[in-house]
Amino acid sequence: MSLGEGAAGANMREDDRLERQLQFIREIDRVKGIQRQTWLLDLSRKENDAEHSWHLGVMAATLAEYAAEPVDVSRVVTMVLLHDAIEIDAGDTFLYDESARTDQHLRESQAADRVFAILPADQASDARALWDEFEARQTPEAKFAASLDRLQPLMHNYFTKGSTWREHGVKMSQVIQRNRHIADGSPRLWSYAESLIRDAVKKGYLASD
Amino acid sequence: MSLGEGAAGANMREDDRLERQLQFIREIDRVKGIQRQTWLLDLSRKENDAEHSWHLGVMAATLAEYAAEPVDVSRVVTMVLLHDAIEIDAGDTFLYDESARTDQHLRESQAADRVFAILPADQASDARALWDEFEARQTPEAKFAASLDRLQPLMHNYFTKGSTWREHGVKMSQVIQRNRHIADGSPRLWSYAESLIRDAVKKGYLASD
Repeated sequence: MSLGEGAAGANMREDDRLERQLQFIREIDRVKGIQRQTWLLDLSRKENDAEHSWHLGVMAATLAEYAAEPVDVSRVVTMVLLHDAIEIDAGDTFLYDESARTDQHLRESQAADRVFAILPADQASDARALWDEFEARQTPEAKFAASLDRLQPLMHNYFTKGSTWREHGVKMSQVIQRNRHIADGSPRLWSYAESLIRDAVKKGYLASD
Repeated sequence: MSLGEGAAGANMREDDRLERQLQFIREIDRVKGIQRQTWLLDLSRKENDAEHSWHLGVMAATLAEYAAEPVDVSRVVTMVLLHDAIEIDAGDTFLYDESARTDQHLRESQAADRVFAILPADQASDARALWDEFEARQTPEAKFAASLDRLQPLMHNYFTKGSTWREHGVKMSQVIQRNRHIADGSPRLWSYAESLIRDAVKKGYLASD
């Protein structure tokens, strides 16, 4: 999908419109500087939000057939590419950090208010609506996007022998609790995730409770 | 767009199919380790292929209205997300390195033969065809994707006061020569790029010949 109705629908001079779009494109360069808790598979370093979002975009194009309901893949891809742009202001909130999660939605909403508003009004409105949709996890696209957003770090944890789980003392019950909504977007991918979790406990990558 | 026809069209057991898809998704984690010559806008470090591809994906969704011909934005996005996956084997070839460019297409074709073939056959065929299309720069989508692939580093150069140009002694004639095909995908974005090049020379970020 593309954002907005295009220049013809916008009530501003063409140069202003392009300048706002380019300003947004420059602003989001900062997404590359937001470190996550996920280790790269070669354990050389942790990944950042831009790398994570790119990985999810390719996953959406590759794994769309496993979505619980038919999805507009193009909307899923755009959703995952943009979903972490708000972390420019709000920072990355670690999935298992319960205290940081208490005000997460407020922080991220305020960030969305600023970041997407850099775009021309029609595109700002589309991008904000897409982010709200992702957050609400009600549509088939949002549910599937959320499944990918959970599966990717879970896979990285498993294939790095529980690197982040061990680093932060995360337990199996927490992993199940925080990831089980993968099933809402894709029962098949949740079944796969469950098999990784079980095997991770068996191999000592993840502590049982 | 999604890759392939889905499980129903594939002649293999479902678990094998998913395993190949997940193997591909793990393999491309290495794209995050391929450094480019483009500096981040905050000059903290150079970016890598995954970050660059993500940036192009967002640019495609944001700037589609400037494509020279109507484009299927979803195909452009998938194309730019995948276009550098072949650099896992072939490495990044600097735009202004004429000697490395002599065998670039051969090295990259061989890489494409291996990397995309990790996927199930229907998806491997789609991904390879999309990469070939990008390389050939004949379709509206490929021309526009190529425009974005050139515009992004050019913008980063300009907004970091010519960092990569100065580091490698690149001259204005080379920048024009290597980037002028931006106009094939988007006359409007080439007009913008030209204004940056002119101003870069004026400000001393880029040496005139």
